[in-house]
Amino acid sequence: MDLPKNRKNDFSESAIKKRTDFLSKISGFKINYLQNGNLDPGVAKGNIENLIGFSQVPTGAIGPLKIYGNHANGDFFVPLSTTEGALISSFNRGARVISQSGGASVVVVKNRIQRAPCFELESLKKSMEFINWLEDNFTKLKEVAESTTNKGKLVGYHTTVHGKFVFVRLDFTTGDAMGMNMVSKATYEVSRYIENSFPVSGYILESNMAVDKKPAYINSVLGRGKTVTAEVVLKKRIISKYLHTTSKEITSAYQKQVMGGLLAGSLGANGHLANGIAALFLSCGQDLANVSESCVGYTYMEDRDGDLYVSIILPSLIVGTIGGGTYLPTQRECLEMMDCHGSGKSEKFAEIAAATALAGEISLSASIVAGDFITAHEKYGRNRPL
Amino acid sequence: MDLPKNRKNDFSESAIKKRTDFLSKISGFKINYLQNGNLDPGVAKGNIENLIGFSQVPTGAIGPLKIYGNHANGDFFVPLSTTEGALISSFNRGARVISQSGGASVVVVKNRIQRAPCFELESLKKSMEFINWLEDNFTKLKEVAESTTNKGKLVGYHTTVHGKFVFVRLDFTTGDAMGMNMVSKATYEVSRYIENSFPVSGYILESNMAVDKKPAYINSVLGRGKTVTAEVVLKKRIISKYLHTTSKEITSAYQKQVMGGLLAGSLGANGHLANGIAALFLSCGQDLANVSESCVGYTYMEDRDGDLYVSIILPSLIVGTIGGGTYLPTQRECLEMMDCHGSGKSEKFAEIAAATALAGEISLSASIVAGDFITAHEKYGRNRPL
Amino acid sequence: MDLPKNRKNDFSESAIKKRTDFLSKISGFKINYLQNGNLDPGVAKGNIENLIGFSQVPTGAIGPLKIYGNHANGDFFVPLSTTEGALISSFNRGARVISQSGGASVVVVKNRIQRAPCFELESLKKSMEFINWLEDNFTKLKEVAESTTNKGKLVGYHTTVHGKFVFVRLDFTTGDAMGMNMVSKATYEVSRYIENSFPVSGYILESNMAVDKKPAYINSVLGRGKTVTAEVVLKKRIISKYLHTTSKEITSAYQKQVMGGLLAGSLGANGHLANGIAALFLSCGQDLANVSESCVGYTYMEDRDGDLYVSIILPSLIVGTIGGGTYLPTQRECLEMMDCHGSGKSEKFAEIAAATALAGEISLSASIVAGDFITAHEKYGRNRPL
Amino acid sequence: MDLPKNRKNDFSESAIKKRTDFLSKISGFKINYLQNGNLDPGVAKGNIENLIGFSQVPTGAIGPLKIYGNHANGDFFVPLSTTEGALISSFNRGARVISQSGGASVVVVKNRIQRAPCFELESLKKSMEFINWLEDNFTKLKEVAESTTNKGKLVGYHTTVHGKFVFVRLDFTTGDAMGMNMVSKATYEVSRYIENSFPVSGYILESNMAVDKKPAYINSVLGRGKTVTAEVVLKKRIISKYLHTTSKEITSAYQKQVMGGLLAGSLGANGHLANGIAALFLSCGQDLANVSESCVGYTYMEDRDGDLYVSIILPSLIVGTIGGGTYLPTQRECLEMMDCHGSGKSEKFAEIAAATALAGEISLSASIVAGDFITAHEKYGRNRPL
Repeated sequence: MDLPKNRKNDFSESAIKKRTDFLSKISGFKINYLQNGNLDPGVAKGNIENLIGFSQVPTGAIGPLKIYGNHANGDFFVPLSTTEGALISSFNRGARVISQSGGASVVVVKNRIQRAPCFELESLKKSMEFINWLEDNFTKLKEVAESTTNKGKLVGYHTTVHGKFVFVRLDFTTGDAMGMNMVSKATYEVSRYIENSFPVSGYILESNMAVDKKPAYINSVLGRGKTVTAEVVLKKRIISKYLHTTSKEITSAYQKQVMGGLLAGSLGANGHLANGIAALFLSCGQDLANVSESCVGYTYMEDRDGDLYVSIILPSLIVGTIGGGTYLPTQRECLEMMDCHGSGKSEKFAEIAAATALAGEISLSASIVAGDFITAHEKYGRNRPL
Repeated sequence: MDLPKNRKNDFSESAIKKRTDFLSKISGFKINYLQNGNLDPGVAKGNIENLIGFSQVPTGAIGPLKIYGNHANGDFFVPLSTTEGALISSFNRGARVISQSGGASVVVVKNRIQRAPCFELESLKKSMEFINWLEDNFTKLKEVAESTTNKGKLVGYHTTVHGKFVFVRLDFTTGDAMGMNMVSKATYEVSRYIENSFPVSGYILESNMAVDKKPAYINSVLGRGKTVTAEVVLKKRIISKYLHTTSKEITSAYQKQVMGGLLAGSLGANGHLANGIAALFLSCGQDLANVSESCVGYTYMEDRDGDLYVSIILPSLIVGTIGGGTYLPTQRECLEMMDCHGSGKSEKFAEIAAATALAGEISLSASIVAGDFITAHEKYGRNRPL
Repeated sequence: MDLPKNRKNDFSESAIKKRTDFLSKISGFKINYLQNGNLDPGVAKGNIENLIGFSQVPTGAIGPLKIYGNHANGDFFVPLSTTEGALISSFNRGARVISQSGGASVVVVKNRIQRAPCFELESLKKSMEFINWLEDNFTKLKEVAESTTNKGKLVGYHTTVHGKFVFVRLDFTTGDAMGMNMVSKATYEVSRYIENSFPVSGYILESNMAVDKKPAYINSVLGRGKTVTAEVVLKKRIISKYLHTTSKEITSAYQKQVMGGLLAGSLGANGHLANGIAALFLSCGQDLANVSESCVGYTYMEDRDGDLYVSIILPSLIVGTIGGGTYLPTQRECLEMMDCHGSGKSEKFAEIAAATALAGEISLSASIVAGDFITAHEKYGRNRPL
Repeated sequence: MDLPKNRKNDFSESAIKKRTDFLSKISGFKINYLQNGNLDPGVAKGNIENLIGFSQVPTGAIGPLKIYGNHANGDFFVPLSTTEGALISSFNRGARVISQSGGASVVVVKNRIQRAPCFELESLKKSMEFINWLEDNFTKLKEVAESTTNKGKLVGYHTTVHGKFVFVRLDFTTGDAMGMNMVSKATYEVSRYIENSFPVSGYILESNMAVDKKPAYINSVLGRGKTVTAEVVLKKRIISKYLHTTSKEITSAYQKQVMGGLLAGSLGANGHLANGIAALFLSCGQDLANVSESCVGYTYMEDRDGDLYVSIILPSLIVGTIGGGTYLPTQRECLEMMDCHGSGKSEKFAEIAAATALAGEISLSASIVAGDFITAHEKYGRNRPL
């Protein structure tokens, strides 16, 4: 009992139909919507196997969101895909108060992606020799790495020696691609070159020090993907008018939430950065598994005589505007909507992502204080009886 | 400059078209695929606002995956939505070796969801009185909480006293809904009841001790949503045949990866649990922001004279089979495909999720060792030049 | 080449002299002060082996420190051993401002100590049976545990199931002893009883879930040893007079330090709790290795119209007033100085420890703001040229 | 009611006697041993204030411990101060099996100490300008820093930008002093120079990113003080003879303990590094509060056909062989015993510390497996009835 395959033409409509028929039969539930969209299944080639159709997730937009970045400048409308009622409204409210207060300032501080092979040596003594060898041969390793890719550059590395093991966290730039495939291949060639040039006993391609698709402190310390920070000063009048509360109330609640998160051992300190990140990743063809490290961030709030200063840092935002899911039809539309598709756009996209996340932090904080957290979910959320 | 609204009929095709026309005009890029699907926009009501259409993400299936759970029993085909080429093939390979080795054993160990208000008292002395009061009045609080919902039950709580603050992490069961809206409302009423019954100075509805949509150690210790654990013993012969490696090789690499993750300050210890979780959440209408805590998990591997014992624990898997995005057309189909839609199905779904994640851990581990990690991505991944 | 031993009388002065003579000869440095104190070496029996003498650490006192606890009530003089110039002065200043503001309120919220064996079963299925068995047989396990000790009580447990492994974190009360030897023995007997009564494949006495002598989030969540919280409201006038700064300045700096600690992945959030804890542990015969978990704590500061509210929580303060080093001559004197030696005193001692740590937090915060951090160290610290 | 002071001669015997008389009277307990040692109180000047005497802690020795380091080479006898019976015996056993297996290899991989001021700017835009300014002016900052000290060198820095805040973690070398006073002063002057040269709104001297005297992930990633790694391969025969167990048994238990620690959210992964570190710090005049970060470490164990490979890394070992408590009489003797007192000795001392900690890891692991953990504590521990 296996899913029907068609080796020659596995992305044909008939191949897909065979699979959905098979699954319908097995489950007794008629599968219809998945394969009945408006897309040519062939567009998914390279993004998936065993295709059974396209999942459809509601997508809304927020905006205008005024941003002053190094790449994103002006008013943006941001597409967000979600199934949580009230999320769009909440982020939209955040966007409004940011924009009406003059906009958010955003900067991409770092931009590097990693793979971290681990090499096993004969002994600690050899590990230290290897460390020196790495330093002496970095130019050669760079050359080997860059021979495998047009866009990727090996720009540095960070080592940890633990007895006979040397963990090497390689730092790459990858143009506007998220770049993990690119750096995996480059790392593979680098590792093989090392294996042939220095007496290592063995290696593994990834030692979990990258750290890819897991929340980890090293990514907060050293950065991963884009490290982005954003700030805004909300005007007292705007807070009162749209958020129905005060800067004092918000910062007072914020202090308790920081302490709550600390006592809970939360990695990061924020309200719901994950909401904005996940919704934007979904609409824009980013890898949803990277929500795991991209959602880690730190929110700061400070009362300024009635105005509210808010800043965030996202140390490890994993995004790209070429490659991955960015060529898929709806995903491309969502990126294009912000002029963020293709080459030269990934830092712009990262800036918009951070400003969006900032909007979410503001709105949630206010709603917890003003007590409309519940009413908003009742108004906008599903009203089916639970 | 604002997104067009239609207060009366905001989910009409015309309202959506007005918005996409507006966005097309702004961006100069014709938006077409988003709103041109096969769905009635009205289905999204309660899941979103400012609807501009439906994002379409490729969905494939893996299976059969043999599971022995308390709720999921038998062979399953699991729908996964992703844009990462090779992911489906990798999980499918994991499913195959599990099934051919006799199947995975899975159990939902705990099942509770949380909100954590923080109450401010006059002083530490009052905090201690409040702690006692809570204990004495739990039955009443339970009654208040449960008056707001048919399915939700307040079943316990965990307190932390920090001077004048009392953080109260309320534990609920919520039937088969993920349940955050339900418990938010119940917590709100409980908090208001407390405010009227005990001299608290104030409270905030959520103190970040829940911890919702953030990775946090408290969720590994106390659990959140479903706490699920799964195991399998892979036969030596199967490892050799399908994974082209040995149990010894895999466990040797595993040890280094555990150390790498520790040195990196990774919360959890796994290969790529996030990949399976995110792909399943997307296809099945789960909240993608919950990938943040759901992806935290711990993988264990042990050589048994050539066989390979693998187990995982997912301490905070946040899923539901009613409510949220589960009624949406393609999402429902994906759930139904596994007979996981509706009441009485959430633990079954959690078991399938854990078995799927287990399959992913196995396949990735093997590919890192056998060196086909790169070749698989080259074979299945996007071949557009990066 | 071995250290001289005297099996019959290893704590005699002659045995010690043989060892120090040996070490003097080896090193060429005359060892004199270590073995030339005023103590009968026999007092150290049970606390050490291969005795070569007594290390002497300078000890000062701070006070009066006004405390309102459930056990410690009144003005205390607290002995602190340290080699860091300015530490005593700093804590003394903290004590003064606390006392002049009316004193610190302190409560021991929890009081339990742990050992955490891990049992290996045949399979996950057996693990679940074992979980049920534990629940059914807790009374018997309690009986077994308590047959090994007069003071120790097995009062609860926390389990984590990971496939075939069941981690059992046993909670004990141990009277006024720190209690690790007591609970180790009790756990050993409980484990052996289990081994003989249920088909476990094996067990290890400690699985690192206790978590003893390591910083760990589980101890912040569940508590370990004494969980103590303390608070004080410092008067505006007192802050100005003794700390030469304001509540606003202090809280403003505090916010940045909280963010700094978060970004650094600090377990806990405080200035230098470790300083007070280590100095008190040293003078009072506590186990210095327990500084590792006892120093983890969380400090909160809030401006109240010019007054300063400060609270701390120490979730895992490991102390005892009988057993361990508490019978040693100078250690006993230091405990007696606060009427904290012997039975019925450990919670009192924990309260004093927390109030002392609170004093340190206040003084350091102020000195960082007021800029006297450097001058104090220059005034009191070593003036040998570095 | 205050502790008697003698401004002119506060370290005289009479001043001390006045204080102990006062404390004796207050407590009703005759204080005798503290001030009745063999030391001239004046030796403590610069290490303490309000001196009331010297606390005396039993000190034993272990050895010989065979070490191959870059600085420590040969057989060492290591003084350890503790009140935990069986600790010395356990570490001694570890030392024996290391030595009989040919010795431990040790390397100091990094050697830098930190202070981390936080600068507040007007805005994020200014933060970015400041980042650039720092880069352009590093040579000048280095000059300013180094003008305050003979030994300290400012050798690098790590920045984190969060909106208007720039956290600057300054890296220093400090010769053989632990160096915190030195770098505090240098950082103060650097900060003041910055304040006068760039339009910062303000700064705080320490932002908790150092991270001093707290456990923190940043110290595992970037290192703090000495980063030391050590390894040994224990022979099968030696394991059997002295540890009464096998490499397989030990590694099997180790795997479970690693998983236990992970599930508990332990920072680091080890058995009881804190025991060796604290005992050595106490005997050798190190700052006991630094046990908090120095005890964080990672232990790795691997079976090699019956032999046992063990390695550890201590990423943040805070030690010095000049300054601090190193001049005190017994402390100096303990350092001299290993030829570790004074200039040029701190890396040697760090190597011995790591080898000692390694010995402790081995012995504890074995005792947990072989079941003599309890019997050892019963044999050597206090036999007073608890």
